Amino acid sequence: MSLPKPPLSELEQAFGYTFQNRERFQQALTHRSANAQHNERLEFLGDSVLGIIISEALFERFPQIDEGDLSRMRATLVCGRSLAKLAQKFQLGRHLWLGPGEMKSGGHRRESILADAVEALLGAMYLESDLATCRKVVLNWYKEQLNHIKPGAGHKDPKTRLQEYLQGKQLPLPLYDVVTIQGQAHNQRFTVSCTTELLAEPVLGSGTSRRKAEQQAAAQTLELLQTQEQGN
Amino acid sequence: MSLPKPPLSELEQAFGYTFQNRERFQQALTHRSANAQHNERLEFLGDSVLGIIISEALFERFPQIDEGDLSRMRATLVCGRSLAKLAQKFQLGRHLWLGPGEMKSGGHRRESILADAVEALLGAMYLESDLATCRKVVLNWYKEQLNHIKPGAGHKDPKTRLQEYLQGKQLPLPLYDVVTIQGQAHNQRFTVSCTTELLAEPVLGSGTSRRKAEQQAAAQTLELLQTQEQGN
Repeated sequence: MSLPKPPLSELEQAFGYTFQNRERFQQALTHRSANAQHNERLEFLGDSVLGIIISEALFERFPQIDEGDLSRMRATLVCGRSLAKLAQKFQLGRHLWLGPGEMKSGGHRRESILADAVEALLGAMYLESDLATCRKVVLNWYKEQLNHIKPGAGHKDPKTRLQEYLQGKQLPLPLYDVVTIQGQAHNQRFTVSCTTELLAEPVLGSGTSRRKAEQQAAAQTLELLQTQEQGN
Repeated sequence: MSLPKPPLSELEQAFGYTFQNRERFQQALTHRSANAQHNERLEFLGDSVLGIIISEALFERFPQIDEGDLSRMRATLVCGRSLAKLAQKFQLGRHLWLGPGEMKSGGHRRESILADAVEALLGAMYLESDLATCRKVVLNWYKEQLNHIKPGAGHKDPKTRLQEYLQGKQLPLPLYDVVTIQGQAHNQRFTVSCTTELLAEPVLGSGTSRRKAEQQAAAQTLELLQTQEQGN
């Protein structure tokens, strides 16, 4: 636990808040692989703090937009990738405490570890301040994104995005088939397969309606295709 | 829109708050089937307000409990069923505005409609007050539940609950089989089937690990079995 790290004040400056409780601040930067006093409880709290701040901001900025579009925009803003980008901006990875295994495998660059630490820091800030303080800091992180985000645009549903992805590669459209329908009327569960030319096997999705199951299958297909691309 | 309804003050008394903005209060009670000015945006906001209040309460009450158990307890407290029970306690159904179709099919008793209205009321309260006011009201609703909730107990994972359910009926244990594994190492997606004697077809679940996929399949099996029981 005595590797040379840059001063924490650099992180605080980028993050936009100076922590009073230094022990908790350190804990927020500690992955479970490094110490029993790790950041998961703080992350649990911080996740909810982020949720209310972003929900409120979107609710106010988009008075005419329906709940579906608000939820999609919120999902975009608070997703792991978005938080990991903030962490990179804060150069947070340099300040993380990781166990030896995670350290070797590049855990300080892993999106999920970075995203969790941002939420944990937010939880630690909330515990010693209040919602208004957190709101000010968080809205500052998201200033640009909130100015540019648009309902609909960039938050297309997974089926539309998958279709556009395949069309962009001049490939045939995906095929959706219902695999099973389970349960009784009014409480059914649909399982649907999504077949594309790019994956050897169909991908399954399930949901309480055929439409929802198809969206889930499309979302999972997209995720796999994007991983494949990154791997190549 | 002119059916005789009991006075809204009765609802406010049970809910624990008197609304200043009467128009928004009405909107929080309006299902999308009844009017273009419906409660879904308020529900979007209220969901986040509920999230932070319950997260914070659990975080404080259980200083030694890990994130997994906190999340399970939160899920129990904020689930649709739990919110619908609160709505029943408030006799909220009598005050709902529903479209003719929903009215006929008993929408004012439907769990999801009741739960959504509780969140929408919470959203409306938050907009005209603050987090401290909402916290006081919400923690009063949950007083009993928060006093009795225990980490672990009653929040067993779905596989354990399914096993106990089947054992209670002296039936054989469920069988889990891996159906597909998709994607590359470190980013795989597992699809698993769960077969029980009580359902004609296996139920599928998916996740980023075999364990997660099995838990999802078990959760969906339990849901179907409970629906079957209610139907009988």
